[in-house]
Amino acid sequence: MTRLYFNEVVTRDGFQNEAHFVPTADKVALIDGLSQCGFAKIEVTSFTSAKAIPMLKDAEAVMGQIQRAPGVEYTVLVPNVRGAERARECRADEWNLVMSTSETHNLANLRMGREQSFAGLRDVVAQARGHAAVNVSLSTCFGCPMEGEVPAAEVLRWADRFATLGVRGLTICDTTGMAHPRQAAAMAQALRSRFADLQITFHFHNTRGMGLANVLASVDEGIVRFDGSLGGLGGCPYAPGASGNICSEDAIHMLQAMGLDTGIDLPRLLTLARQLPDLVGHEVPSQVAKAGRTQDLHPTPAYVEELRSERS
Amino acid sequence: MTRLYFNEVVTRDGFQNEAHFVPTADKVALIDGLSQCGFAKIEVTSFTSAKAIPMLKDAEAVMGQIQRAPGVEYTVLVPNVRGAERARECRADEWNLVMSTSETHNLANLRMGREQSFAGLRDVVAQARGHAAVNVSLSTCFGCPMEGEVPAAEVLRWADRFATLGVRGLTICDTTGMAHPRQAAAMAQALRSRFADLQITFHFHNTRGMGLANVLASVDEGIVRFDGSLGGLGGCPYAPGASGNICSEDAIHMLQAMGLDTGIDLPRLLTLARQLPDLVGHEVPSQVAKAGRTQDLHPTPAYVEELRSERS
Repeated sequence: MTRLYFNEVVTRDGFQNEAHFVPTADKVALIDGLSQCGFAKIEVTSFTSAKAIPMLKDAEAVMGQIQRAPGVEYTVLVPNVRGAERARECRADEWNLVMSTSETHNLANLRMGREQSFAGLRDVVAQARGHAAVNVSLSTCFGCPMEGEVPAAEVLRWADRFATLGVRGLTICDTTGMAHPRQAAAMAQALRSRFADLQITFHFHNTRGMGLANVLASVDEGIVRFDGSLGGLGGCPYAPGASGNICSEDAIHMLQAMGLDTGIDLPRLLTLARQLPDLVGHEVPSQVAKAGRTQDLHPTPAYVEELRSERS
Repeated sequence: MTRLYFNEVVTRDGFQNEAHFVPTADKVALIDGLSQCGFAKIEVTSFTSAKAIPMLKDAEAVMGQIQRAPGVEYTVLVPNVRGAERARECRADEWNLVMSTSETHNLANLRMGREQSFAGLRDVVAQARGHAAVNVSLSTCFGCPMEGEVPAAEVLRWADRFATLGVRGLTICDTTGMAHPRQAAAMAQALRSRFADLQITFHFHNTRGMGLANVLASVDEGIVRFDGSLGGLGGCPYAPGASGNICSEDAIHMLQAMGLDTGIDLPRLLTLARQLPDLVGHEVPSQVAKAGRTQDLHPTPAYVEELRSERS
């Protein structure tokens, strides 16, 4: 049976988009809970400036207080060499670097061009040697909300440049939920044939409702690693009110229902998902947390038993 | 290119689950709008008792006031011979009959056993001859919320019995969102090989987030007809807070993005979807209505142009 690997990004990519600060102790408790669920990786936090992302200003405290579980990698977002120093001090297992394959999105999001981003991240990759594995998350690989189409060749070009630097993994991000299943399948084929030795992770958003269909199409083409966010947290400024990241528990529930091995303890994960609305102060897009798993049956109403006995 | 056919069920299956009455004139205006969108069928209303479903107490008025568009079939739910009389008087193009493949669900939902339902519906099929085409919607084909698994053989057995009566079509319903993509694909294969001459429609709910993944898996196995509900209306009493029917505009958007011909004017449909929250008085699960289509781009922020000019 195909083994799938899930990375949980709620405390970084999810919380980053939340309006109200989640206290450090709550973040630590959530991560410690996630550590018991069977994730391959947990993206704990980001070593960006506290001013830019106040939600993650407690990055060091969180990294210092979590209980690391054997077999789980704790990854952090590292934007630059200063962030790399902080990640090294915190002994993060993996550094996750981010840039966009769209020039306009990179300018909008990181306030620099792609070449400048690449030069900075190259230095970070060099710093990582001997300290941490490196993953690069490439944003807008399935389309840019401002430029529109991002050619697959452009994605492969940036993937090539990072592969040449010796990174361990690449995450192919559908940052604003523009991917459709045929495109996901084609991207999976192109990347698997070209980067057989790299960890390839797909990162989908459910902005337009296509998230799990894209996961399905990617699994069918041999992709085995996915990012997901508990509760589907992680909205997008370009789509107010729409869903964010694919919801980890919904994706895992579907794949388990299909008979695939996700490595995840779903009941335990659902317990955490059901605590999330209280933690963030609002409803979350998660469906399985509300509806229960397919196998969680409902009691037969009393009148049905009465009808049955009347007939017998 | 494969041609797909969509049936819009919002004014029957969707509204039936709404708490507050939608005025007749609003229903008629919505159906008249939907008639211009390219649907193969519109399920207008239900000829059940006004007491059982007060929302649809205006069935005759709605059927009398809508403007019928050429090429669109207007179908109505017919529960029994009394409903059939009313449907005939209203000149419905198609009668949609409903029963469950799960005994417990049929008892819970229709307050009679499956054999009693079948006997009643057999009389309705006989009444339809010369007046309307007949479609049978089989509920809980992918699982029953009380019994659990419904064997595919059981679905095929009931499908066979109705096929023998000479119905034109069968709708295979995932009434409470329990289907997963492998199951949808297997069901599609089994039905297509067995009922090549019948219109086979798949009806999915997004209760656990798997709706569009199930559509994808079914399209890949040659299913070309789908029910959908504008805005994703049509929740389920077994899953409070969870999504209802698959959202027509989200499914159609995905399939169009994949290059398939749905026959639907999506911008026109989205205009209707965006009016729906006002009509029903609450937010609806639709994602594309909130986020826009993939090709609807966003303006580049002014600071990006400034950054660009600084660099050149």
